[in-house]
Amino acid sequence: MTDNAVDTHGMPGLTLLGLGDMGTALARAWLAAGHPLTVWNRTAARAAPLAAEGAAVAATAAEAVAAHRLVVVCLLDDASVGTALADADLTGKDLVNLTTGTPGQGRARAEWARERGARFVDGGIMATPPMIGAPEAGGYVFYSGDRGLFDAHRETLAVPAATRYVGTDPGHAALHDEALLSAMYGMFAGVAHAFALIRREDIAPKDFAPLLADWLSAMTASVHEAAEHLQSGDYTRGVVSTLAMQVAGVPTLLRTAEEQGVSPELLTPVLALMERRLAAGHGDESTTGLIDLLVRDRAVG
Amino acid sequence: MTDNAVDTHGMPGLTLLGLGDMGTALARAWLAAGHPLTVWNRTAARAAPLAAEGAAVAATAAEAVAAHRLVVVCLLDDASVGTALADADLTGKDLVNLTTGTPGQGRARAEWARERGARFVDGGIMATPPMIGAPEAGGYVFYSGDRGLFDAHRETLAVPAATRYVGTDPGHAALHDEALLSAMYGMFAGVAHAFALIRREDIAPKDFAPLLADWLSAMTASVHEAAEHLQSGDYTRGVVSTLAMQVAGVPTLLRTAEEQGVSPELLTPVLALMERRLAAGHGDESTTGLIDLLVRDRAVG
Repeated sequence: MTDNAVDTHGMPGLTLLGLGDMGTALARAWLAAGHPLTVWNRTAARAAPLAAEGAAVAATAAEAVAAHRLVVVCLLDDASVGTALADADLTGKDLVNLTTGTPGQGRARAEWARERGARFVDGGIMATPPMIGAPEAGGYVFYSGDRGLFDAHRETLAVPAATRYVGTDPGHAALHDEALLSAMYGMFAGVAHAFALIRREDIAPKDFAPLLADWLSAMTASVHEAAEHLQSGDYTRGVVSTLAMQVAGVPTLLRTAEEQGVSPELLTPVLALMERRLAAGHGDESTTGLIDLLVRDRAVG
Repeated sequence: MTDNAVDTHGMPGLTLLGLGDMGTALARAWLAAGHPLTVWNRTAARAAPLAAEGAAVAATAAEAVAAHRLVVVCLLDDASVGTALADADLTGKDLVNLTTGTPGQGRARAEWARERGARFVDGGIMATPPMIGAPEAGGYVFYSGDRGLFDAHRETLAVPAATRYVGTDPGHAALHDEALLSAMYGMFAGVAHAFALIRREDIAPKDFAPLLADWLSAMTASVHEAAEHLQSGDYTRGVVSTLAMQVAGVPTLLRTAEEQGVSPELLTPVLALMERRLAAGHGDESTTGLIDLLVRDRAVG
């Protein structure tokens, strides 16, 4: 099976299901690059501006799927993917699912696609819609699943944002996506606490911000230390600020929050986990051991 | 009053109280730069190696204080400062307190020093001992308090690590120090959760680490956004990922943790705070509003 539509410059065509903010941004990037594009959206009005920009608008998802071998899906959630594609013939299709979901949903959707005769790759978009089609913004998309599919469409997939293929497990794109988002919310929590501490002081947030941002960027070095510790299994190697030393600083951290009238609620769980790991006899480690305490059904301590 | 000892090259002398790992690193940096240095430590044995490197060792803290106008203190905690200096004559001294403490302790210690006739500056060291005397390591020290003292000894203070003067309030050095540390623990919490998510997967931590570190560095841009929002009072300006959109992603975040067998305990407080701010009608904001929810005794929501 080959594409039903190839433009005069030989750019491969593709189908896109879902025209929310992200889907629309993706559509515009492919259209701007000259790719023949067939679109479908549950609410048809979203397709009208794209039709004016050269997109073919399909009346049904099944019709859109029939138009091209490569079918990209960017819908509200995983359930919407099943619903939208219920009547489509996926035989011989290359399905790329950019819908946000869990690793388990990615794996189940891959099996679902295989049963319907399609190859499948799941994706996790590490970008906001304004970053799509703007390589200098630094956004990218994690992909995982069928390697043959990814290699066949690599250049087309790279049009809206850079690609990072993270393995054949169709759950790994979503896993990478959610892991990075999770880490970000931890950082956001720390940032909120820090700004709260200075909130009532005569300290300009704009003077404080570069200090905080530079410090956090420098502290990302701890990520590489944690990786080395996890790979070696030795969480003490090269540690300068030991868990014992860090826990010794906790009372000052909490007393500072108290003095400044700031709730410590965002930090207390991680500080408690540090104390638990120390109490279990791991004072000479880095904070890497916290990771083991978070993973359930595992001998810990 | 001037220094009692100036070396042949005219380098100003100083006194250092406290020879723990950090104090010892500070001492070595000043000795290496040719500053006459008088040291004292409660446990005298810590001073012996420094004596061999050229330091004058005082028998008592009072004797050490008498040796130079500039007196740097780097002890275990704030109470140790009061104890060590109980019998010292501080009249006309320039006291620089690098002992870890809270903003309130810094302010109280400044008042205590003023009553004893000394000028006072508090400091917060953003470096580990190996980073002292190694400018390329990027460590630095926050200073706040008496501007005249800081300006008079600026070059001497800059020998062990770069200096950042953050205002006349003697509590602000400790406040900056503790705020940055607090933010770091938030980030560490996020990093631990992220690594826990991939812990049982066939994903090498060393492959994952650069993705995570680069992502977190990129996301420090949110610090500058928060500062602009706090200064303008408008938490919606330029927001692309609104609080409403972010909260919509929370179930996927939590379900991913559940699928991967990871306790969400480090993230639930910040996610709950996001939901609380959303429920109060701030869905079009960034996460800046979380800061207001953390500050007590303040009209919130």
